[in-house]
Amino acid sequence: MKLLAIDTSTNACSVALTCDGELVAEYLLNQGKTLSGRLLECMDAVLDGAGLTMADLDGFGVALGPGSFTGLRIGVATVKGLALATGKPVAGFSSLAMLAMNLPWAPFPVCPMFDARKGEVYAAIYDCRGLPEARRADCVLSPAAFLDSISGTTIFIGEGAIRYRDLIEARLGGRALFAPSSFNPPRASSGVLLAADAFRRGDVASLVTLSPVYIRPSEAELAKLKREGL
Amino acid sequence: MKLLAIDTSTNACSVALTCDGELVAEYLLNQGKTLSGRLLECMDAVLDGAGLTMADLDGFGVALGPGSFTGLRIGVATVKGLALATGKPVAGFSSLAMLAMNLPWAPFPVCPMFDARKGEVYAAIYDCRGLPEARRADCVLSPAAFLDSISGTTIFIGEGAIRYRDLIEARLGGRALFAPSSFNPPRASSGVLLAADAFRRGDVASLVTLSPVYIRPSEAELAKLKREGL
Repeated sequence: MKLLAIDTSTNACSVALTCDGELVAEYLLNQGKTLSGRLLECMDAVLDGAGLTMADLDGFGVALGPGSFTGLRIGVATVKGLALATGKPVAGFSSLAMLAMNLPWAPFPVCPMFDARKGEVYAAIYDCRGLPEARRADCVLSPAAFLDSISGTTIFIGEGAIRYRDLIEARLGGRALFAPSSFNPPRASSGVLLAADAFRRGDVASLVTLSPVYIRPSEAELAKLKREGL
Repeated sequence: MKLLAIDTSTNACSVALTCDGELVAEYLLNQGKTLSGRLLECMDAVLDGAGLTMADLDGFGVALGPGSFTGLRIGVATVKGLALATGKPVAGFSSLAMLAMNLPWAPFPVCPMFDARKGEVYAAIYDCRGLPEARRADCVLSPAAFLDSISGTTIFIGEGAIRYRDLIEARLGGRALFAPSSFNPPRASSGVLLAADAFRRGDVASLVTLSPVYIRPSEAELAKLKREGL
């Protein structure tokens, strides 16, 4: 089974291709061109490098969020288009679970963290023996409020953990551990494992209802609620 | 500091770029075109994706082996050429340490393993809290002989661990754990952490003496020894 997974949850963008579980190619770009340009470049590079075309694929995986609203919209819309054009199934997965999957044998709970702007983070706590299992579900919160709920030794990972490292260390001291720097960008090669698991479980997304998981309302929704006096 | 690291130790080929410790881009190809073609394609994609040229780099990292003789020769020769042309320094690192670095928080010793052909493996045992530390140095041995020396729970990783998985499980039973499939190819993004550490320690390679670390003699050397009756 050939699976193509994409991630556009943060400023990093990556595409990974597996064939029967083996990683065949991955391309990750963490800065530079605009996201939409990078995504297509990453997809082209991965398929071209593997000598494959879209028609050779058996399915798609996509990171659903939480994360950058614009990034997630681009990622989900792109995969929906590809699935519609090729008739191949799609599996979605949590962007934070994908990031936790970067540390598959972590001996302590893993806290994947993205900067959610407005003084908040998208964060969760996962156990990472094998596929990540949520101890605390994906949420959006101020980093201080999120950290207040953590008592034990925890490994922090992601650009949110870099952004708030001083605060994390001030609150948790020696109980706060950090992923090596190269592990902070989320990776489609970690996400593709979650997509493969979803396909194994028959958890295929409907193209009609497949949507990003923003967790918090968008600016447009907030403005509408305000206009309506709610 | 901008570092470009390359790995050509196995059939997988990858290039990673970091800027001040942050991973900017990585491209990994695990099959498809011939290795030398893939390496240049990976380098071009990584630099182009990041909007940089060779002249922007501050140094190079390269996986020295053990691994594929041909792969290592291509990788080391390419980096030597780049370093000579640009005047930038090079740091080499163990290919097996780089592979172990894929599991930076492993709670058990990690055994990176490449298939060395001729019924042997390149293998080692590393502790992986932070940068990997060798418990057992890189060596080439029959998998059975190598496994005989392992008593505790160990996490196996790499294409050699896939190739000899049945044997590993038969010998070690439940004490043998395995990395998730996407983690088996060595990654330049793990290697670049080892190169950065080498530069920090001032461990810069001399272009005159920088060579692949094959561990065992090449076919040509064996033939020569045989001809000379040694």
